[in-house]
Amino acid sequence: MAEFDKKALYSISYGVYVVTSYYEGRLNGQIANAVIQVTAEPPKVAIALNKSNLTHSFIEKSRVFAVSVLDAATTLEFIGLFGFKSGREVDKLSQVKYKIGVTGAPVVLENAISYIEAKVEKEMDVGTHTIFVGEVVGGGVLKEGEALTYAEYHRRKGRAPKAAPTYRPEEQKAKKMGRYVCGICGWIYDPEVGDPQGNIPPGVPFEKLPDDWTCPVCNASKDQFSPEK
Amino acid sequence: MAEFDKKALYSISYGVYVVTSYYEGRLNGQIANAVIQVTAEPPKVAIALNKSNLTHSFIEKSRVFAVSVLDAATTLEFIGLFGFKSGREVDKLSQVKYKIGVTGAPVVLENAISYIEAKVEKEMDVGTHTIFVGEVVGGGVLKEGEALTYAEYHRRKGRAPKAAPTYRPEEQKAKKMGRYVCGICGWIYDPEVGDPQGNIPPGVPFEKLPDDWTCPVCNASKDQFSPEK
Repeated sequence: MAEFDKKALYSISYGVYVVTSYYEGRLNGQIANAVIQVTAEPPKVAIALNKSNLTHSFIEKSRVFAVSVLDAATTLEFIGLFGFKSGREVDKLSQVKYKIGVTGAPVVLENAISYIEAKVEKEMDVGTHTIFVGEVVGGGVLKEGEALTYAEYHRRKGRAPKAAPTYRPEEQKAKKMGRYVCGICGWIYDPEVGDPQGNIPPGVPFEKLPDDWTCPVCNASKDQFSPEK
Repeated sequence: MAEFDKKALYSISYGVYVVTSYYEGRLNGQIANAVIQVTAEPPKVAIALNKSNLTHSFIEKSRVFAVSVLDAATTLEFIGLFGFKSGREVDKLSQVKYKIGVTGAPVVLENAISYIEAKVEKEMDVGTHTIFVGEVVGGGVLKEGEALTYAEYHRRKGRAPKAAPTYRPEEQKAKKMGRYVCGICGWIYDPEVGDPQGNIPPGVPFEKLPDDWTCPVCNASKDQFSPEK
């Protein structure tokens, strides 16, 4: 591969979506940002998903998916549920509001401004990921509102899971004393900041956090954290 | 095709890009919004282009393309050059700053915050459009700045060309007295607004515009306009 500045890729614009599917009565969903409309007549959308993800294997079998467009006000915690946990371990849909859509795939309604339902027409193997192209067979607007952009998610300190097309390894490298990194989602506990959402004020060292404290993004327990290297 | 609310598709987030290529010494480029990174290792990007566009046929033959990420400050006029004119009639590249990149395709430098250069690895026919997947072989950051989003372009009254995957036919339907529509790009002259960029104050009827007045978006001449229907 030729040398080039990978930062060039960071200025591509994305939204933040929950892509869902089902298989044999099981429902699952995951965060995705690589979602585009590819034709207008008839409307078709393309999504790029990592082959290692459970949602990918459900779509491969059921040939259907739904996309919920997340609201700009969506919390990092909600994104953490779909972005940093595996459906192999957690029943994600049981924790949110959804409906079963026209394809049989669940449609996440919580934090969504609109949704799109599609039947897979074609797929393309692109290495670590597959591009699924689906003809749109359903969809609707759920509420007024702005879509969450990946740029905004990023400003709020969200980061891409390792399986994302937009994963940036160097984000794991910033270093400061006393900080602890979540082994599940990569969120960093910084004692200078604390964890406002968990009512931890600035100034509390990681070691002094309550035993039942959990990661504000993915709910991992304290023992999943390790000192930043 | 099933019935559904097409507005659901409007909340997908995009940037605005110039995609370029070349063939037998000719250079061309076009506006695109359907651009995503699809893998991180190695970095690959996917673009969806209309088969009727000249850039599409150049990419099919040369198997290379470049993507310039447009700056949030890019004018509608610049976008009009690449989005509403055909390279079959106009030498677009002769009108802007560019360099020949590592693939031989031109890289538009004007109004761009970064660029990406790719060699086509795969392509997929999706009907009116083709999805080209390219391995990234070059790229760089040109300046600090925010990327232009499609939402922002839209707020500034830009609209999608007919060939775009995101074309919205109902945008052609709003009606008001005395307004004239550009037959090339669909821009509407509204006498209540005038054309501030062309020094036409509000209150000037279309018929009273100077003979050499041209469309502020695509530079079409006055005779390309017709009364809004």
